[in-house]
Amino acid sequence: MVSETPQSEKHIFQKFDVELSNLVDKLLEMGGLVEKQLSDAITAFSEMDTELANAVLVNEEQVDDFDMEIDRLCVRLIATRQPTASDLRLILGVGKSVQDLERIGDEADKIAELTLSMAEDAGMGSSIGRSKIRYVSQYVSEMLRQILDAYGRLDADLSVSIARKDKIVQEEQESAARELITYMMEDPRSISMVLNVMWALRSLERIGDHVENMAEHLIYTVKGIDVRHSTLKEMKKKIRKVGDRS
Amino acid sequence: MVSETPQSEKHIFQKFDVELSNLVDKLLEMGGLVEKQLSDAITAFSEMDTELANAVLVNEEQVDDFDMEIDRLCVRLIATRQPTASDLRLILGVGKSVQDLERIGDEADKIAELTLSMAEDAGMGSSIGRSKIRYVSQYVSEMLRQILDAYGRLDADLSVSIARKDKIVQEEQESAARELITYMMEDPRSISMVLNVMWALRSLERIGDHVENMAEHLIYTVKGIDVRHSTLKEMKKKIRKVGDRS
Repeated sequence: MVSETPQSEKHIFQKFDVELSNLVDKLLEMGGLVEKQLSDAITAFSEMDTELANAVLVNEEQVDDFDMEIDRLCVRLIATRQPTASDLRLILGVGKSVQDLERIGDEADKIAELTLSMAEDAGMGSSIGRSKIRYVSQYVSEMLRQILDAYGRLDADLSVSIARKDKIVQEEQESAARELITYMMEDPRSISMVLNVMWALRSLERIGDHVENMAEHLIYTVKGIDVRHSTLKEMKKKIRKVGDRS
Repeated sequence: MVSETPQSEKHIFQKFDVELSNLVDKLLEMGGLVEKQLSDAITAFSEMDTELANAVLVNEEQVDDFDMEIDRLCVRLIATRQPTASDLRLILGVGKSVQDLERIGDEADKIAELTLSMAEDAGMGSSIGRSKIRYVSQYVSEMLRQILDAYGRLDADLSVSIARKDKIVQEEQESAARELITYMMEDPRSISMVLNVMWALRSLERIGDHVENMAEHLIYTVKGIDVRHSTLKEMKKKIRKVGDRS
């Protein structure tokens, strides 16, 4: 059965039907919410906007609700449809990606909490490190946007470029950490404040890791190959091989 | 260590059979390996044993192999047995716990990497913070041992005490972080070194979170209720309610 929804490229799943299409749509809906949580958390942090930080923490519940709803949907689909092959891979892949999205939401919460604790410690805080946060967060937000886009189109090829960005995020995080250490050494009174920036950068790095996991789940869903624990080079090779066969 | 006769209480699953039993055994086997990885990483860190740290990094591959093997087993069981109700919950619960075990392994790797980078920076390093690491790691290792034990017996009641320990780990981590900041302020030259201790503590805290996730997956498997995103008090209440009904 071909999808009846506008997602024209989903026809690669022969049995892709309304229920499975709804499952992916739910994942994308949750993804949109998590994207907004992340963007709000970053804005709150870089502008020391405690009201926005509190809003992020309040909205966490909505992310959790999605998490449990999609999980129940996955269980119901497996129990009632007894899917095999690509359908089963899709359901399990979505189930795993939901876990990653939920944890991206958790990291956004952590950034919101850091905002509140910084605002309490230092009034309007200092501007040290904020440009780094903005810079790294652009990469991470772009990765999240891309993976959701790739899920919407069930397009595994995008995943390689996502994995490449994750490497950049890690490098930027390390370089920023080195720079921040110099601030702490120059002015020991800034240590607590600068540590908060470091924790926020760490959260961004973790978000990059989760997006990379989602990319791996998507490749597994679409191509049926497990690229976890592969290096970038091996990953490309595996995808190419499967492409050659088809 | 993990119970040697874990199958004794598994009769609560009416359809629990050899295949499902093997699946849980595989999870416990992976758990035993991850326990060893964590314990070796902690020893390497607190004794600045770079040889042991390197061994942890080499053994990472074995953890990854388990991860993929158990995942394939889960997919095969669902596709061939078309399980419903408690059997399906068990398979999906194991699938999720494998992800958490794999990430506990990743955190052990991070602690091993920190050991190597500290040894490089400062020869034998300093002893600051090592007792904190040992102290917090005792709680975390105990939590991991308990959850594996609980999985071996499919015993959901243990999960509440595990969740309580996670709260202690978080509190200890925060108190340790505050103490470590004073070291950095007193001697700015120690900042890089002390940061490594902080990252290691963060990794231990993350491991506690993953064990808590595993406890939630186990409660869901055994009791059929979703306790994720519950507070400790709500969690107890939910478990009691299900107990009353049965």
